[in-house]
Amino acid sequence: MALNPSLHLEYPHPIGEIEGVAIGTPFGSREEVRLAKLHRPPMAGISYITDGPAESIVISGGYQDDEDFGDTIIYTGQGGQDSPGGKQVKDQEITRGNRALIFSEEHESPIRIIRGSGGDPQFSPKSGYRYDGLYLVKNHWFEKSKNGPLVIRFELNQIFELAQINPSLQSVGAAPSGNAQPERQSVTTSSIKRDSSVSDWVKKVHNDRCQFCGITLITRVGTYSTGAHIQGLGRPHHGKDETSNLLCLCPNCHVLFDKGVLYIATDNKTVVNIVNGEKKSLLLNEAHILDGVAIAHHRLKVAGVD
Amino acid sequence: MALNPSLHLEYPHPIGEIEGVAIGTPFGSREEVRLAKLHRPPMAGISYITDGPAESIVISGGYQDDEDFGDTIIYTGQGGQDSPGGKQVKDQEITRGNRALIFSEEHESPIRIIRGSGGDPQFSPKSGYRYDGLYLVKNHWFEKSKNGPLVIRFELNQIFELAQINPSLQSVGAAPSGNAQPERQSVTTSSIKRDSSVSDWVKKVHNDRCQFCGITLITRVGTYSTGAHIQGLGRPHHGKDETSNLLCLCPNCHVLFDKGVLYIATDNKTVVNIVNGEKKSLLLNEAHILDGVAIAHHRLKVAGVD
Repeated sequence: MALNPSLHLEYPHPIGEIEGVAIGTPFGSREEVRLAKLHRPPMAGISYITDGPAESIVISGGYQDDEDFGDTIIYTGQGGQDSPGGKQVKDQEITRGNRALIFSEEHESPIRIIRGSGGDPQFSPKSGYRYDGLYLVKNHWFEKSKNGPLVIRFELNQIFELAQINPSLQSVGAAPSGNAQPERQSVTTSSIKRDSSVSDWVKKVHNDRCQFCGITLITRVGTYSTGAHIQGLGRPHHGKDETSNLLCLCPNCHVLFDKGVLYIATDNKTVVNIVNGEKKSLLLNEAHILDGVAIAHHRLKVAGVD
Repeated sequence: MALNPSLHLEYPHPIGEIEGVAIGTPFGSREEVRLAKLHRPPMAGISYITDGPAESIVISGGYQDDEDFGDTIIYTGQGGQDSPGGKQVKDQEITRGNRALIFSEEHESPIRIIRGSGGDPQFSPKSGYRYDGLYLVKNHWFEKSKNGPLVIRFELNQIFELAQINPSLQSVGAAPSGNAQPERQSVTTSSIKRDSSVSDWVKKVHNDRCQFCGITLITRVGTYSTGAHIQGLGRPHHGKDETSNLLCLCPNCHVLFDKGVLYIATDNKTVVNIVNGEKKSLLLNEAHILDGVAIAHHRLKVAGVD
């Protein structure tokens, strides 16, 4: 796992490891954690840089929905509670620490994890706090909380290999030197098996025309589009690899759909851009029936629109 | 390797394995090969379906530039010779069999390989012809032939696992059933190590604005673009992972650039669409110097423009 050294040089607060603080270091109090430069705010769970990445999270059981599996953490975002650790009374939004965690996800920027004694007993210290190393935000989605309003849930995975980050060698704004002879590497990934005939069929039915913006990319041997799963395959969405769960989209609209910028309204025929409010008609084909449950899943879980 | 069963059902001639013809089956003549339904044309090296994929290739040493490594074949496309197996007098073009091979590459459609005695002695039969199984077109690029004009070179890789293709179970045009609970699989791939700080820098210098079309994709936490290598990393292009070899592009323009539809003209500042002839000014930033050698490499090898 290569971290993103460029991020680490341009922010006023340190991202990644703190020199001299080993994984497993115990702390008696939040104030000690703060003085060690691990986590700046005295109370808040997320330390973040405005318009930038998050730096650290303190996990201490403030959200009953949090789940700790050791190397994987399902963490609930901030906001919308009537009091700290209290009842969820309002939807959480992509602002402040939540925004920063999504920024960190997009930029593969590591988060320092500090566990407090209030968390899952299997992985938390008996008392005080403990620095537990770096995690990456792997994924995020919206969910209805037990009390109704939406919360944002983040999946964080522990990382063990670190890139060499040496701030003294680079200054902000200068082009990184890169690599004139980049090496080959072998990477094993786990993914969901897709049946290419499913997306081929969807793309063909629409003649490679994007169902959102109407563009058809013309190549030298035909046309090009992508098959976009509405309800994502695998964790956490568990969508089906079936034609009713796919859209024919251009690569640009595919990115915006996966990021929850574009979603399909409850009429199942209007495409909404959540950032600028723009609405368009979804381009439909009668042979291609769409799964309303999958559309509702995407709208809620990915776009956060209830 | 999952083949693409949907392709195999809608063409008038069989794609993939021919029932009853085992790998290694010898044939005395091209006519015998034809009667076995392995390769239709009596003379031409590529058998293909108009506006569709290629079905088969006979490799028999017609091009001196062909290279045979057994499970990998570097095959030269058709056209532009003064006589069969003769001197290259004109550029090869993305038409007929060459177009079909690129179509097969884009659709991951398998090619039957028949080796004749005229090919590389290490891998070819001593006399007659031999059916050597299925290969996928992995890549293609343009190259100057020894005599000057451009040829198209295709890299084909042998495939050993076959998808179950059962034409009787599906009819053309009906939606494939897909999979309601797609399985997880572990895949190991070999790729070139990229330094994310290199593309991050390029994207940041351009504020995520596409250098070709000027679009900036707006997400919920900022903006989005991709870093596109001009001279591709790894085989066959061996480009550098350096900022001068990257462009900031939107995903749509990235696809068209990688497919050689868009290229940068010799003035290093005009973007040309080879399909519709459209020209635009490349959006430049003085801090981001581009490598003219990499641009010329892409123009020649990917777009086929000398």
